[in-house]
Amino acid sequence: MFGARCLLRALRSCSSAPCPRHRPAARVSVRGALGVQSANGERVKVQGWIRSIRSQKEVLFLHVNDGSSLESLQVVADSSFDSRELAFGSSVEVQGQLVKSPSKKQNVELKAEKIEVVGNCDAKDSGFVHIHTPVITSNDCEGAGELFQVEPSSKIKVPEENFFNIPVFLTVSGQLHLEVMSGAFTQVFTFGPTFRAENSQSRRHLAEFYMVEAEISFLESLQDLMQVMESLFKTTAMTVLSNCPKDVELCHKFIAPGQKDRLEHMLKNNFLVISYTEAVEILKQASQNFTFTPEWGADLHTEHEKYLVKHCGDIPVFVINYPLALKPFYMRDNEDGPQHTVAAVDLLVPGVGELFGGSLREERYHFLEQRLARLGLTEAYQWYLDLRRFGSVPHGGFGMGFERYLQCILGIDNIKDVIPFPRFTHSCLL
Amino acid sequence: MFGARCLLRALRSCSSAPCPRHRPAARVSVRGALGVQSANGERVKVQGWIRSIRSQKEVLFLHVNDGSSLESLQVVADSSFDSRELAFGSSVEVQGQLVKSPSKKQNVELKAEKIEVVGNCDAKDSGFVHIHTPVITSNDCEGAGELFQVEPSSKIKVPEENFFNIPVFLTVSGQLHLEVMSGAFTQVFTFGPTFRAENSQSRRHLAEFYMVEAEISFLESLQDLMQVMESLFKTTAMTVLSNCPKDVELCHKFIAPGQKDRLEHMLKNNFLVISYTEAVEILKQASQNFTFTPEWGADLHTEHEKYLVKHCGDIPVFVINYPLALKPFYMRDNEDGPQHTVAAVDLLVPGVGELFGGSLREERYHFLEQRLARLGLTEAYQWYLDLRRFGSVPHGGFGMGFERYLQCILGIDNIKDVIPFPRFTHSCLL
Repeated sequence: MFGARCLLRALRSCSSAPCPRHRPAARVSVRGALGVQSANGERVKVQGWIRSIRSQKEVLFLHVNDGSSLESLQVVADSSFDSRELAFGSSVEVQGQLVKSPSKKQNVELKAEKIEVVGNCDAKDSGFVHIHTPVITSNDCEGAGELFQVEPSSKIKVPEENFFNIPVFLTVSGQLHLEVMSGAFTQVFTFGPTFRAENSQSRRHLAEFYMVEAEISFLESLQDLMQVMESLFKTTAMTVLSNCPKDVELCHKFIAPGQKDRLEHMLKNNFLVISYTEAVEILKQASQNFTFTPEWGADLHTEHEKYLVKHCGDIPVFVINYPLALKPFYMRDNEDGPQHTVAAVDLLVPGVGELFGGSLREERYHFLEQRLARLGLTEAYQWYLDLRRFGSVPHGGFGMGFERYLQCILGIDNIKDVIPFPRFTHSCLL
Repeated sequence: MFGARCLLRALRSCSSAPCPRHRPAARVSVRGALGVQSANGERVKVQGWIRSIRSQKEVLFLHVNDGSSLESLQVVADSSFDSRELAFGSSVEVQGQLVKSPSKKQNVELKAEKIEVVGNCDAKDSGFVHIHTPVITSNDCEGAGELFQVEPSSKIKVPEENFFNIPVFLTVSGQLHLEVMSGAFTQVFTFGPTFRAENSQSRRHLAEFYMVEAEISFLESLQDLMQVMESLFKTTAMTVLSNCPKDVELCHKFIAPGQKDRLEHMLKNNFLVISYTEAVEILKQASQNFTFTPEWGADLHTEHEKYLVKHCGDIPVFVINYPLALKPFYMRDNEDGPQHTVAAVDLLVPGVGELFGGSLREERYHFLEQRLARLGLTEAYQWYLDLRRFGSVPHGGFGMGFERYLQCILGIDNIKDVIPFPRFTHSCLL
């Protein structure tokens, strides 16, 4: 129906507009449009995403960006174009005349004759329910990372040895708790502090950091999961650019020159996908000498991640299907023969390396039971197994390191500079 | 200017409306308006707050509530009434005709002839900046509450005894960190997990809970602070009622019958203010026998808090100006002679007791220095003293227990029922 309305408008504009039908609008980028020195009514077509929208009585103002420039193009339209579909984040194709803007804020603006919504953007954050997962937990979600243990600082009058009766730790991930809640709310996320007691002084590790984690029920493929991850990366970056342009400009101008172009490059390209096996092949064929020799079955190191991103043209790259032996018990078995991989996915990004980690979860009771039995964890994770006994569904999720994300979009070299009170080995100031 | 526009509209409506000028509109409550069985164009005046707003091409829909009822009154207005000031949370006075609603959702609606905005409501959350304060800290903000200590669970290869070189704990409050940030952003808040290792099995204590904390620079009186607290309590309750009516109804219908009326009672009355000294007098004159005899200089216990709220007619009550000896070092000295109190404030609410705690902070270097010296804390809090040496300003803030708030508005008896994964003595499940 919207398409029909657009068609009617286009026909109407053709009959009244001064330009004849045989001169189609030339497609230009936002950067190209903004660069026109003395606009004089040229007919053009711009494709991009709506970054802001302002509806007045007679007129509608849109700011449209396509990633070719950090500045947006102002589109001015008759208020009859207004519709619920023209929302922040929607993708649009706008045809019209490029004219000199009466405002001092910009040189040119696009007087719209036709606006077509290419893809809607539901403003309700895709229906994810925000869950507060606990900080103190008796689980060790990763089965790997070093944990912080928690005990009352003075002897409290409890007969047992532990305050909670069992040893408890600071959470390394809210995933298992999110899996509980995704069984009630379908799509859930958490955004909270996470802890690793790793003795690392690197520029991308903190002992206390924030993670955005999401869990999605009824999700059956890594492809669908990667789509959510890529969309989260891009939508959030666009929102930050749109809502805090001056803060971003400060970073891009004084701290990370060139980052503006690098970010635009990431936003306007589709992220790439390679398998772990392909990644190892690429690394083996590299002319570069690595400290850790790349080998199938071994973890990817920072030097490998950096090389892969460079090799892929400085575009974020998803690496999928890792060896089962490298990954935690909850990842879904690909049942792919001797190599034996799981449906895991990491997203590697320029400047930072690993930014997201995710997977399909093993929703099949017997597969999970066998994995836990082999690890001697059956008793501890009985409650988790129960999630597969009662109303189990295919599902998957991911976690994104929030400070690393800020590093990536702002171009900040050291992770300690994107958190107000950084905590790391030997340092817990204030 | 808006006043003038309203006046013009009123004059216009008077000249065209069927009713003569000498029949002024009768003031009715929202409950009263909703209770009219067969509306027939009666002219009425309603005062309340906008709970939702929907603007269509020709017509504007407002839902207005005054606390007399949990349901709102639908106001239908000509789109010419639309203005930026008609926003969620604004207080308005609406005059018009009570008519039968064409929709099945409600019996009556108010056809507006005049809408006056009494008080604007800035949608930008009053300009508070959200800060993530750290969970791991070397401070003990309260100087009292039992702390959880944090150490790596296995021996990490660091030569020093502690991972962070010094003993560290789980935060009991983000206040001191917020004070740092309020010196840069003026108004800040945090919303995050907080910890107390208290061996309590009560229905209002958790070992891990959430606090909303705020800190405001250039704030000089408890009166101003209490206004922010009361507004946070009421605005949030109105938002929850407006956005999640069905969830609230579930609680009010099946879990806490009568809570609906109790909440309306809290929302439509101004909160009361009494001093600690007055509170002790009230308790001393009580006919009730307390387990802990009320006495000036002693802390208020739950039984005292309950009595005070009851005594005040089940309306939330601020208790201000506590004895200096009872409160932490950072609270502002009232310099009021032998009794010697500080500018502290607690908010006691029905069913829960203490919900908020706040104070003006001691911004005067020499006062703070002397207090810290007496406690032997000068060295540990040198950085905090420095905040008073460089650009100190009068400021104050508060913390609100989030789960207790949910208990209070939903009428949930046990705090363990308003958090998905409760942690308390002897229990850290999942």
